Formats: sequence, C-alpha cells, structure tokens
Amino acid sequence: MKTGTIVGAGLAGSLWAVYLAKAGYKVTVFERRPDIRKAEISAGKSINLALSERGWTALREVGLDRMVEDLAIPMYGRIMHDEKAKLTFQPYGEEGQAIFSVSRGGINARMMDAAEQSGDVTIHYNHQCVDVDFENTKVTLLNKETNETIEHQSDVVFACDGAFSAVRYNGFQKVDRFNFSQNYIADGYREILLPANEDGSYKLDKNALHIWPRGEFMLIALANEDGSFTCTLFMPFENHEYSFDKLNSRDDVDQFFREVFPDFHAMMPDVADQWETHPLSSLALMRCYPWTHENFALLGDAAHATVPFYGQGMNASMEDCYVMGQLMKKHNENWTEVFKEYQEVRKPNGDALQDLSVHNYKVMRDLVADPHFLLKKKFEHRIHDLYPEKYLSLYSMVSFSNIPYAEAMQKGKEQDDFIEKIMRENDIEARFENDTIDELIHSIFQAEAV
Amino acid sequence: MKTGTIVGAGLAGSLWAVYLAKAGYKVTVFERRPDIRKAEISAGKSINLALSERGWTALREVGLDRMVEDLAIPMYGRIMHDEKAKLTFQPYGEEGQAIFSVSRGGINARMMDAAEQSGDVTIHYNHQCVDVDFENTKVTLLNKETNETIEHQSDVVFACDGAFSAVRYNGFQKVDRFNFSQNYIADGYREILLPANEDGSYKLDKNALHIWPRGEFMLIALANEDGSFTCTLFMPFENHEYSFDKLNSRDDVDQFFREVFPDFHAMMPDVADQWETHPLSSLALMRCYPWTHENFALLGDAAHATVPFYGQGMNASMEDCYVMGQLMKKHNENWTEVFKEYQEVRKPNGDALQDLSVHNYKVMRDLVADPHFLLKKKFEHRIHDLYPEKYLSLYSMVSFSNIPYAEAMQKGKEQDDFIEKIMRENDIEARFENDTIDELIHSIFQAEAV
Ligand SMILES: Cc1cc2nc3c(=O)[nH]c(=O)nc-3n(C[C@H](O)[C@H](O)[C@H](O)COP(=O)(O)OP(=O)(O)OC[C@H]3O[C@@H](n4cnc5c(N)ncnc54)[C@H](O)[C@@H]3O)c2cc1C
Ligand SMILES: Cc1cc2nc3c(=O)[nH]c(=O)nc-3n(C[C@H](O)[C@H](O)[C@H](O)COP(=O)(O)OP(=O)(O)OC[C@H]3O[C@@H](n4cnc5c(N)ncnc54)[C@H](O)[C@@H]3O)c2cc1C
Repeated sequence: MKTGTIVGAGLAGSLWAVYLAKAGYKVTVFERRPDIRKAEISAGKSINLALSERGWTALREVGLDRMVEDLAIPMYGRIMHDEKAKLTFQPYGEEGQAIFSVSRGGINARMMDAAEQSGDVTIHYNHQCVDVDFENTKVTLLNKETNETIEHQSDVVFACDGAFSAVRYNGFQKVDRFNFSQNYIADGYREILLPANEDGSYKLDKNALHIWPRGEFMLIALANEDGSFTCTLFMPFENHEYSFDKLNSRDDVDQFFREVFPDFHAMMPDVADQWETHPLSSLALMRCYPWTHENFALLGDAAHATVPFYGQGMNASMEDCYVMGQLMKKHNENWTEVFKEYQEVRKPNGDALQDLSVHNYKVMRDLVADPHFLLKKKFEHRIHDLYPEKYLSLYSMVSFSNIPYAEAMQKGKEQDDFIEKIMRENDIEARFENDTIDELIHSIFQAEAV
Repeated sequence: MKTGTIVGAGLAGSLWAVYLAKAGYKVTVFERRPDIRKAEISAGKSINLALSERGWTALREVGLDRMVEDLAIPMYGRIMHDEKAKLTFQPYGEEGQAIFSVSRGGINARMMDAAEQSGDVTIHYNHQCVDVDFENTKVTLLNKETNETIEHQSDVVFACDGAFSAVRYNGFQKVDRFNFSQNYIADGYREILLPANEDGSYKLDKNALHIWPRGEFMLIALANEDGSFTCTLFMPFENHEYSFDKLNSRDDVDQFFREVFPDFHAMMPDVADQWETHPLSSLALMRCYPWTHENFALLGDAAHATVPFYGQGMNASMEDCYVMGQLMKKHNENWTEVFKEYQEVRKPNGDALQDLSVHNYKVMRDLVADPHFLLKKKFEHRIHDLYPEKYLSLYSMVSFSNIPYAEAMQKGKEQDDFIEKIMRENDIEARFENDTIDELIHSIFQAEAV
C-alpha cells in the first residue's frame, strides 16, 4: 500500500490528510499537541480566522465545504471605528460577497474528523517530530507522554508543522544551498475577548470585520459563534508613542483604551483586567527555497508563514493542498515530478502572499481611515459593477478568486497606477455627487476597448 | 574564578581564548574536530587566506603578531592573467603595503598554542556543541569519541562555531524575535593545488594574488609556504555558458582549462586529474540579529559569515575579538553592558562587510579586466600619493586601516561618485600621458579645500 506521513495536524496537515487518504494512501499524521477535540487547549495562535475563496475551493475539492459551513460567520465588509466612535462601512466585494469568520479549533477539529473518516488515516497526538532522515524518508518522533523516541518510514513526507517547522529546522535548513530567512516585524499582537451581552447577543455587528485604525497600530474584532468577539491589538513592541512597552500597569492599559478606543472601552470597561489573559505574541515572515527535498515537501506556514494582515495564511495553506492535489493527479503520483512543479509554481505565490500581507497592514491600520483610499475603493467597486469581466479589485482577486497571488499582485499594481491616474485627472467625488460617474467609467472603458 | 566557555576553536575561537585568558578567565574551549596540530586533517574551507590590517591589529593587541609573521607571505598587488596569458600588475596600496597569504591550519595552530600558553585555557577536541541553555549559561556537548553527552556551565559563553553555528541554530534561532537569514549565492568554488616546481620554487610570482578574471567567473591563486599555490575556481553552479554542471568528465575539465586559462593549463597539464581532489563547495551569507542573548554572544562567522571575495571574513572575526576586548575593559567586564555595545557597534559593520564582499566578486571576476577600472585605480593611487591624509581608496580603508566597515563603505561610495565625475569631465588617460595629472589633482584638491 502507498504510504504517506504528515507532520503536524494543524490547518494544512488535517486537510492534506483528507486529500491523501482520498488518493488511496495509508496516512500517518504526527501532531505535537494533544487532540484538541478532547483536551481543553487552544489550537494556538489566533482564536478565529477569516476564511475566503481559496480556502473554500480547497475544502470543496474534497467535499469538506459543507462540514465547515455552519461554523462560518459571513463578514460582508469592514466597519471602521474612529476616535470619536463614528462608524464607516466599506463592503469587501459585490453585494452578497463575504469572507467568513471561523473558529480555528472548530475548523481544525472538523478536518481531523473528516480525515479519520475519509480513509486509512491515523493521527498520533503528543508526537513531536525531532529529526528527519531524507535518505530513508524517515522522521523521528518524540512521544511526549512516554518520552520515547520512534522512527517512522513512508513513501513520502509532508511537513505541515507550521511557521517553526521542525522538519525545516532539523532537515531542510541543513541541506546545502537551502535559502532561508526568518524576519520578525517590529509589531506584536495581543488578543482580548469581548464577551457577548448577558442575553447572549453580540455587542457589535457580527457580519463585519471591525477595525479601529490608528495610523501606526490598530485593533480588530471578528465574531465568534457564541456571541463574543475575538479582538486583536496589533502595535509596535517598543520605541513608539503607542507601543506595548508603554502599557505596563492596569492603569496604563485602562487609560490607553479609554483614550484611543473610547467605544471599545465603553463596551468593555474591564479590558485592563483581561489584558493578561492572552500573551503578547510576535509576528514573523518565513521565506525559504527549495520547498521540497528528496521525498519531503513543505506545505503551509512551514513553507511561507506570513503576517496575518490579509487574512490569507490559512487560505494559502489550503491552496497548497489544492495545488498539490491537482499535480498529484497530473503527474500520476510521480512525486519527483509533482514536487518539482509544486515548488516552481507555488514559490512565487508564497512570496507574493507575503508581500501582499505586509502591505495590507498599512491598509488596515492607516489607509482605511483615509478619505482618498475610501473614495478609490468606492470608485473601484463602481467600475467592477459596470465592467465585472474587465475589472476586479486587488482585494477581490485575493479574497474572492483563485487567481494566483503573484498574478493578482502584478495586476493589482497595474490597476492601481491606472486608477490613480484617472483620479488625478478627474474629480471623482464630484462625479459621484452629480451622478456622472458612470459616464466617466464608460468613456474610459470604451476608449480602452478600442 | 571567572569562567568563560568558547564553542569552536577556529580562527575566532582560538584568538578569543587568548584575549579571555589574558583577562584572567578560566577558559574552556570545545571544538568539534580533532586537534589539527596532531591529526592529518584539513582545518576546513580554504587552505590559505589573506590576512590584512584588521587581523594584524587584533593579533598585535595580545602580542600574537610575531608568532604569525613567519607564516605570512606578503602580496603587494594583484596580477591579472588574461585569455592570451598576458599579465597586468596592480598594486594594492602604497609602496610596501601588502596583504598576506597565510595557511589556515598554520595560523589556527599558532593561536591554539598561544591560547594554551597564555593562561588557564583547556581545549577539548572532538566535543560538538549540540544544545544550549540560556537560562543557566550552559552548553551541552557530545563527546564524539565516547558518544557521551556532557553539560558545561560558566559565567559567559562565546559562540565561535562558524557559519553553521550550532549555538545559533539550537539556541539563538529559537529565541523569539531573532532575525536570521542564510542566503546561498548562485556560485560555488573548487580548490586546485598548483604544485611547486621540482626544485621547490614557485611557478608564479609568490608576492601577488593571481586572478584570471573571466567576467562571470574567475580563478585565483595564493602562494603557500612550500612553493605551491592554492588556486580556487569560483563559478556558477548551473545555468551559465560556463558553470560547474558543464564540467562532468575529465575531458570537459581539460578542455575548459586549456581554452579559458591557457597559461594555467600549461603550468598544470594534469589539472583534470586533480579536479576531484577537493570538493565542490557552496558559498553563503548568514545575517542575524541580535548577536547576544543572556550571557551568550556570537563572534566571527557565527554572527556574520560572508562570501570570501574581499578576503575579510577572518579579519572581521579577529576584529570582533579586538572590539569585544576593548569593550570588556571599558565596561569593567559587566557583560550586559559589553554585549549591548558590542552588538550595536558591530552589527552595521557585519552588514557592510557582507555588502562589500558581494560587490567585490564583480570587481575581481570582471572589473579588474576593465581598462576604465584600472585607470580609475591608478588615478586613485596618484591622488593618495599627493594627498595621503585626504584620500584613501575603499580597498585601502578596508584592507589597510581599521576604519569600521560601515564607515569605509559609505565613504567609498561618496568617493566613487566624486572620482567618476572627475573622470567624466577630464581625459585622465591623456593627463597621465602628458604628465599633467598632478596638476589636475592639485587643482581639484586645492579647490576642495576652500
Ligand atoms: C494572529 C494570527 C491571525 C491569523 N489570521 C488568519 C486569518 O484570518 N486568515 C487566514 O487565512 N490565516 C490567518 N492566519 C494564518 C494561519 O494561522 C496560518 O497560515 C495557518 O495556521 C497555517 O496552517 P499550517 O497547518 O501550515 O500551520 P499551523 O496551523 O500552525 O499547524 C501546524 C501544526 O503542526 C504542529 N507541530 C508543530 N511542530 C511540530 C512538530 N515538531 N512535530 C509535530 N507537530 C508539530 C502544531 O502543533 C500545529 O498543530 C493568522 C495567523 C496569526 C498568527
Ligand atoms: C573559500 C574561502 C576563502 C576564504 N578566504 C578568506 C581570506 O582570504 N581572508 C579572510 O579574512 N577570510 C577568508 N575566508 C573567511 C574565513 O574563513 C572565515 O571568516 C573564518 O574562518 C571565520 O572564523 P570563525 O572562527 O568564525 O569560524 P571557523 O574558522 O569556521 O571556525 C569555527 C570552528 O568551530 C568549530 N565548530 C563548528 N561547529 C561546532 C560545534 N557544534 N561544536 C564545537 N565546535 C564547532 C569548527 O570545527 C571550527 O573549528 C574565506 C572563507 C572561505 C569559505
């Protein structure tokens, strides 16, 4: 029987197990943590995440979309909260288009269930990969309950062990000519749980992603199923007017929220008491190449961990599974061929994902409060309404399509130059006001067509 | 008694042991390899290296310069060998200034001797560092002879374990917010030993560094004490008209040397037979920060491994020792203070060292064969002769001074712009020919002074 090993049962690993099982492999998964379905533990990192088209596409391919649907809370746009508690809504896409807030633990558990049901899949928990043997396609695991070390051999190994991948550190990184970087950004994050109202209802509109953009830092909130919101403060660690190192006491924190996020403070006056519930965490970009070596491949964050500002890390990881699945069929499971094409095709997209993610921090914390940016978005949406085939905004290409990230980024740049030029040459605001915006758009796009 | 641990007894570790012993520390050194003074093994990497002012300064500080002097063969300039075997000499600096070819094993052995003589230093060979414990200032060592693992504790630990530092991989790299990259360049290298003549004499002028610049690749040669030369071919691994992947058979190699390095082939007609004597090796830049954590510090290649094209890796590593030594005195061995200033001061210089090294590959393989570049060098030397206080070429700042690398690089850029401008506005070649070059230089520098 064909055998495959997966290291890590996180978002990529649990999904890839389904793909591999469906292809008839005997799959062995090793996961460092206990089973999150049984233990009262966090699934790590953020508590909820934004799932968008690429994720859905990868889930759909193996029939998992329906298993996940009831976990997913649609978010149709952003709601910005300014310093005076004034709200502004900005749709993400067309009417009805949304990205979805899902619980990390929830989706991970469903994918584990699906993996176990879909074929010959065994997940070993509390098994930490500590070494790899490329030559013999083996991984070494430390059983954290018994403290014993075992070896496991298979035809092919997939490292889905996340940003701090042990397979990458202990294996790939020692391979000659393996390029690698780990780059921490100057900002960290801390989560805060905004509880539901006493009657279980939401304190904010649940169908939007909430942002308190403050220029150099921001607070965001995504709804959970139980009426609460998981809120995340992203901010520099140090050396700024507002940075984590300035918030040392209960009073510092209280005053900071009262002053900077007044509507949030009003909803959660005890925010300072909850401050230490979650740790202050750092954010890094991991870049490397090659992504495959002998019979080993890196998938997901192990290959291209990024900062979370485009809400695409999980989506990209799932897309890795989708692409690997397509290539597995295309090359008839000749893994040498599959891996070659996988890394050549995916690497530029991993790099673009990271560039897009870094850039979007500026968008979220700063530009969404900028009138010019909002007008541009409105203009873009109108263009898309009139010429849906011809114009898709960068955000839509990333979140509502499966256009490869690198292509989306390139097209996005060209479009941005084009839009900026039109905006310099025309008074778009006036055009909207006096209802001549469509005229302008038609004149441009009909001229373009010629 | 004050105690210090050094991991790695290479070029930085053996020198730093001397510094630390002189400061009254009980020093324990752990070295992975056997004692190179006893075993018939290579000291690793290149067989000889260019030692220049920064290295001498660091050696002098602890009285080691005299121990090394008799190993050192002065090289007063470069001799370029073109495709027609025509030779061009270009001095490195002023009359009498030289960089020095030294044997890696030789200088390493002398520094080990000195370390053992200079105080309470014990070097444990065949001891490989496999783990670190920051909290308790401990390192874990695998005794490669007995296969036993031991722990060693001390006041302070210095990681001098080179480009692939185990302390960095197993310790620093796991520290939150540690930035790191390992970047392999597209080129590799292979060494070739050009033997002495039968009577023991040199086949080439020993007092120069020989270069066969060929645009995208190059061969270089540095003299050894025994009449031989260590030659190194630097060339892309693949995807070029000339790259290592094209040289697969004895015939390929023979034809390549015959065609591209005819004078070399004439001296060593059996080059193809010697081809496999040394391995094909890769070249990487390692960049990281911070360089210190708790009571641990990275020194030498562990902190800033670079490509060898400026002949400065060892010199920079020795300069680390010198700077650390100065700071140790300045801060009265308060290691927190010492480490803070060490990394703040040295990091920009490590980065500059790497930028300079990368750039100098182009200089060596390509520009030294370019008439404009050679004329510029000649012009620079003349300026320096006339205004020695005011003008030092970049090469001289790097190789014949202790001006920090970052400062040298910055000044070098400004000077280059300045010289290029003068060369655009004046016919320098004609000025040399009709003996009016000094006039020009005086007119510029006197105008400058105003
Ligand atoms: C604050 C934050 C917010 C985010 N928000 C979003 C979002 O809104 N949308 C989105 O698409 N993405 C988001 N992401 C990114 C997303 O979390 C990751 O891209 C995604 O988790 C990657 O999946 P993965 O399976 O590659 O890694 P992980 O989900 O990290 O899974 C790795 C698994 O491997 C296990 N493991 C690790 N080491 C070993 C070992 N040695 N042996 C065995 N098992 C091991 C881990 O326990 C874990 O289960 C966010 C990330 C962060 C940090
Ligand atoms: C081809 C080439 C040519 C070069 N030419 C020049 C030149 O002309 N001039 C110049 O200045 N520089 C040159 N360099 C650079 C120079 O070799 C390095 O900068 C220098 O060796 C760095 O010294 P180091 O002590 O930091 O590292 P190394 O000299 O590499 O010493 C590291 C030591 O640590 C030991 N070690 C490694 N891992 C462990 C472990 N886990 N436990 C215990 N011990 C360990 C190693 O065995 C070794 O002895 C060249 C480099 C190369 C590759």
